[in-house]
Amino acid sequence: MDIELIRRLSTPADTKVVLCVMDGLGGMPGPRGRTELEEATPRHLDRLAAEGTVGMTIPVGYGITTGSGPGHLALFGYDPLQFEIGRGALEATGIDFALGPDDLAARGNLCTVDAAGIITDRRAGRVDTETTAEICGLLEREIHLPGVELFVKPVREHRFALILRGPGLHSGLNETDPQREGVAPLGVVALDPAAEPTAVLVRQFVTEARRLLMDRTQANALTLRGWDHRPNMPQMPELWKLRAAAVAVYPMYRGLSRLVGMDVLDCGTNIESQVETIKQHWHDYDFFFLHFKYTDSAGEDGDFARKTQMIRDFDAHIPSLLALKPNVLVVAGDHSTPAVMADHSWHPVPVLISGDHVRTDAAHRFNEPECIVGGLGTFPAKELLPIAFAHARRLSRFGA
Amino acid sequence: MDIELIRRLSTPADTKVVLCVMDGLGGMPGPRGRTELEEATPRHLDRLAAEGTVGMTIPVGYGITTGSGPGHLALFGYDPLQFEIGRGALEATGIDFALGPDDLAARGNLCTVDAAGIITDRRAGRVDTETTAEICGLLEREIHLPGVELFVKPVREHRFALILRGPGLHSGLNETDPQREGVAPLGVVALDPAAEPTAVLVRQFVTEARRLLMDRTQANALTLRGWDHRPNMPQMPELWKLRAAAVAVYPMYRGLSRLVGMDVLDCGTNIESQVETIKQHWHDYDFFFLHFKYTDSAGEDGDFARKTQMIRDFDAHIPSLLALKPNVLVVAGDHSTPAVMADHSWHPVPVLISGDHVRTDAAHRFNEPECIVGGLGTFPAKELLPIAFAHARRLSRFGA
Repeated sequence: MDIELIRRLSTPADTKVVLCVMDGLGGMPGPRGRTELEEATPRHLDRLAAEGTVGMTIPVGYGITTGSGPGHLALFGYDPLQFEIGRGALEATGIDFALGPDDLAARGNLCTVDAAGIITDRRAGRVDTETTAEICGLLEREIHLPGVELFVKPVREHRFALILRGPGLHSGLNETDPQREGVAPLGVVALDPAAEPTAVLVRQFVTEARRLLMDRTQANALTLRGWDHRPNMPQMPELWKLRAAAVAVYPMYRGLSRLVGMDVLDCGTNIESQVETIKQHWHDYDFFFLHFKYTDSAGEDGDFARKTQMIRDFDAHIPSLLALKPNVLVVAGDHSTPAVMADHSWHPVPVLISGDHVRTDAAHRFNEPECIVGGLGTFPAKELLPIAFAHARRLSRFGA
Repeated sequence: MDIELIRRLSTPADTKVVLCVMDGLGGMPGPRGRTELEEATPRHLDRLAAEGTVGMTIPVGYGITTGSGPGHLALFGYDPLQFEIGRGALEATGIDFALGPDDLAARGNLCTVDAAGIITDRRAGRVDTETTAEICGLLEREIHLPGVELFVKPVREHRFALILRGPGLHSGLNETDPQREGVAPLGVVALDPAAEPTAVLVRQFVTEARRLLMDRTQANALTLRGWDHRPNMPQMPELWKLRAAAVAVYPMYRGLSRLVGMDVLDCGTNIESQVETIKQHWHDYDFFFLHFKYTDSAGEDGDFARKTQMIRDFDAHIPSLLALKPNVLVVAGDHSTPAVMADHSWHPVPVLISGDHVRTDAAHRFNEPECIVGGLGTFPAKELLPIAFAHARRLSRFGA
């Protein structure tokens, strides 16, 4: 997507677009020589493929296996190589922390050190999330740094996010995790002279944290990495001249949606309540992003049958979405997670567009072999949204 | 291929990749309405296409007919438009001359001139290589230029390479071959004022060479073109974190391989001995490039039947390669050379990937009509290597 071109051509319209992302959608032939989608023969998706048009997306680049973060940024229309989001910012937004423009975030790990300060366990025995939450509460409450506000938020197990809020903070700090045990955490070093005042603050945080935790036998120290500000993403509402909402259960997807300017709606934790949430807010937004995680989870677990079943589970909710009469319904994936690989992969991802103005093609099922010869062809995932919004007549003509 | 991204994501692995390049592979329908590949029905390649995945590569750009040099650079993962290699540098490296950082190389042709200095034969009757070697020895021995070392090396028939070694040499010189007979070779001209000192040296070389050769009736003069330094190519072993070897018979392909950091193995002059060379070195390398020239030669000669036979000849050696159990076997072409055109062409080139983690597709033969609808789609040739190395699990994940 050429952002300046979109900004210039996007136009308000009285149309609605729903983007359904089935995480890790793409698959590979399994035990019976058919992919998860072929095996699932999802009734409604197959019908949409027959009536609509299909293709294949390349998430980040040829041969590149992507994480879900960059995979989603591409589906939201951004080049993931241009908009790389630091681990700290991703972690913070992923726990629903609303990063402000003055915030500097890091990903933290609790670790265990011995009396001499030598790391004996880099992940503090994967201490439970509740304990980490208690420790974070203690650090946030007790530590005060001059001129900045401080947030210490638990993520999961030994992971936490540290956010400093104040003017002039600089992200040019090193990673203090030595990536091995038997040595002390590294000192905080400014990688850029302009980051030295920030380094001074972070050193003070580390020292005070160590003092507060020193009586503990486990999770008595910490490491920090991935310092970053909130990325300066062009915001979807301004870029596309519309109101955009995300209906996602998992924190990282909620965080990413917020970063690109979507409103993140409260929704339950299952697909029924997610669809219900869209229904409730149908008149408030022009664009809905609906995230479905479980195809990826099953794929990552190497569970071909469960991934197939998850596809069918999702498929069962297509009629409820269609009942809302979206002008354009898109079903895509952020990357492939073939169950036979039990991992993300680089393979292109099936995609379908259904609704107004689709030029139908010969494909009549929603699966890999059909999508390869679909009317949309094989194209970069970052181009999907312009294609979808074109179908919704939300892009005006270029040139006379 | 995004070189910085590859550098960042490439990861060592215990897998082996073989890239077979059938020069000028792509064809066009011949006398019976079928392309060379369709007519050949190569048994083993067709089976690999059925079990693996196929597609089409675009060597340099839409509509661009490429020489073998840029065509191969693309297959090695480099953008041929970004990394242009002068003919001189290519020719010198192609004869196993190790170009140094201070070297400036040109491609030379011996020609025949009459008493008035007018070219009567631009290729000196395609004088034999031995005579050219004698002449080169004479010139290298007898000519001395101030401040630079001089190398004159025979290539094949009337062709030779001239290398000047010294500080501050500039490649901005014209081509002295007038590209027709009946006129004298052009004078040496500096195309950039900074190249004038180099032009002075080269003029002196040309004058002295003419004096040394004037008693000859044939091959008594020379022309020069393609002045260039050694290109500064990212090296495959460093870029991909692997050991790479080339098994090529023809000098230019050996030279290109060396320029991108491959070890160039000693091998015989036929495909049997090339395959045997790979077998002997199987445990020493992670990546092998195997070059097969004769499909192109037959295509250039406009010999449809011979090109078809050359495809079958190559096909017969596929089992020996498979017996080595490569994780990934790629069969590609550097460009199309349709026999009916008797020339290189811009048409996309069939490609197949066989081995680990291929997502099979509906294509069950290795030919143009099937590759068009293959699972790899139609893509830039420079993206082939990332795709191949992805299949060999030599690229780690991008982002969280």
